[in-house]
Amino acid sequence: MIALTLIGIGTGSPGHLTRDGIAAMAAADLILIPSKGEDKADLAQLRQALCRRVLASPPPMALFDMPARGAKDGYRQGVEAWHDAIAEQWEKVIRSHGAIRPALLVWGDPSLYDSTLRIAERVARRLPLTLRVIPGITAIQALCAAHAIPLNAVAEPVIITTGRQIRDHGWPPGTDRAVVMLDGDCAFQSLDPEGVQIWWGAFLGMPEELLIAGPLTEAGPRILAARAKARAAHGWIMDIYLLQRRRPAG
Amino acid sequence: MIALTLIGIGTGSPGHLTRDGIAAMAAADLILIPSKGEDKADLAQLRQALCRRVLASPPPMALFDMPARGAKDGYRQGVEAWHDAIAEQWEKVIRSHGAIRPALLVWGDPSLYDSTLRIAERVARRLPLTLRVIPGITAIQALCAAHAIPLNAVAEPVIITTGRQIRDHGWPPGTDRAVVMLDGDCAFQSLDPEGVQIWWGAFLGMPEELLIAGPLTEAGPRILAARAKARAAHGWIMDIYLLQRRRPAG
Ligand SMILES: C[S@@+](CC[C@H](N)C(=O)[O-])C[C@H]1O[C@@H](n2cnc3c(N)ncnc32)[C@H](O)[C@@H]1O
Ligand SMILES: C[S@@+](CC[C@H](N)C(=O)[O-])C[C@H]1O[C@@H](n2cnc3c(N)ncnc32)[C@H](O)[C@@H]1O
Repeated sequence: MIALTLIGIGTGSPGHLTRDGIAAMAAADLILIPSKGEDKADLAQLRQALCRRVLASPPPMALFDMPARGAKDGYRQGVEAWHDAIAEQWEKVIRSHGAIRPALLVWGDPSLYDSTLRIAERVARRLPLTLRVIPGITAIQALCAAHAIPLNAVAEPVIITTGRQIRDHGWPPGTDRAVVMLDGDCAFQSLDPEGVQIWWGAFLGMPEELLIAGPLTEAGPRILAARAKARAAHGWIMDIYLLQRRRPAG
Repeated sequence: MIALTLIGIGTGSPGHLTRDGIAAMAAADLILIPSKGEDKADLAQLRQALCRRVLASPPPMALFDMPARGAKDGYRQGVEAWHDAIAEQWEKVIRSHGAIRPALLVWGDPSLYDSTLRIAERVARRLPLTLRVIPGITAIQALCAAHAIPLNAVAEPVIITTGRQIRDHGWPPGTDRAVVMLDGDCAFQSLDPEGVQIWWGAFLGMPEELLIAGPLTEAGPRILAARAKARAAHGWIMDIYLLQRRRPAG
């Protein structure tokens, strides 16, 4: 039986690591580090550095190339095939190292917009596997902490959604507060900015951290500029924001 | 200038504490521990035990009584007055100890359904204060990790809401996935259970942890029974659940 652990590591700061996360890293006999080659945004180096930083004698790390994602199938079908290919890679790496307590370091929390859990389920169909998940600090919490703001209004709901959802469907129904993630293109531009407040953060928890907040009418253009500049400087960017609108009349 | 730190401590397990959280606890010159007297659910003892467990020489802790909440005003007005009274207490405790680096241990994450941030803002109007927030593991993440499930369906939104919202407004519009918190009364009973899946957890991260999952039609009654039993045994309960419904036709 192989005991696979998915460890939420927070969003880049070694300070986000939990006691459980560190203990699980130390207890692993192999840490799988997926890599996208030259892509800085894969954070493979950061993961390795994190292990070395917090563990006196880190377990062996297996860096392996992520399979490329086929572009020709439909979106969902393409994702399925891609996850299958990744699961095959994991299996190969685990087998070739004879690992029985392998672990993966998952950005933020493994439950939030991350495919690692779904890939682990596929691996469980190929290998006798038990799965353990260690929660981690999400980008949502890093955002709220950095701005020192609550996620929700008192006793009110908040929706977690994506840039694409905002672009395709506008303001999410049934709530005045929305966290937007996975937004490659500042989807807030597609909303009527009147009466909307934004709290934005990029590279949260990392040395490059950027924060901007204010009414969307004036903060929006500042975010566009800061984002373009940071992206040009670093070659990539990770950002997230919280929107609050004035409750519409009625 | 007083530097106040709000430290997210996760949901009861010392394993949820982050490196930043532990460092901030150690750096404080006073830890404020609000107490509701005989009320087990105030977790004052657990907070004290946590400090002693992870710090070799914990800073002084000031246990202080939480003011009672006035019941006669309207809901929002009652909350405002209550927060004012708590802020006054904090100020008194900070002043009387001459603390300049006071800290509060906040259950889960300070951003999520918690009034500490709002009280801190009030204290900042009474004392020269800088505020720092350390994110913590939320009950949402503890729930997903315990069940080893994703919070969201691929690229789909998820709403975070309360028992009262579900009871008053039914299934939240615009999403097929909802986390329900602050639910004293199993609000899922007010929903049509057909085609709904539930993942439920109580006392997450604590020795008493309980988990139940399944189709709401059959898991619902099991949850009601387990919840009533646990509540009778412990005198209180904390629980949370994730609901997923089959996408309605159209
Ligand atoms: C694939 S999702 C993974 C989320 C992660 N599992 C979590 O718990 O935060 C990546 C998205 O998370 C957000 N994100 C992750 N890390 C971030 C950071 N350090 N700063 C800002 N946004 C971040 C961005 O919205 C990004 O598009
Ligand atoms: C006042 S809110 C505080 C939430 C907290 N700030 C967090 O980040 O999880 C309390 C609600 O959180 C949930 N909760 C907190 N701790 C929990 C635990 N250990 N197990 C299950 N639910 C919990 C319950 O829904 C409870 O009604």
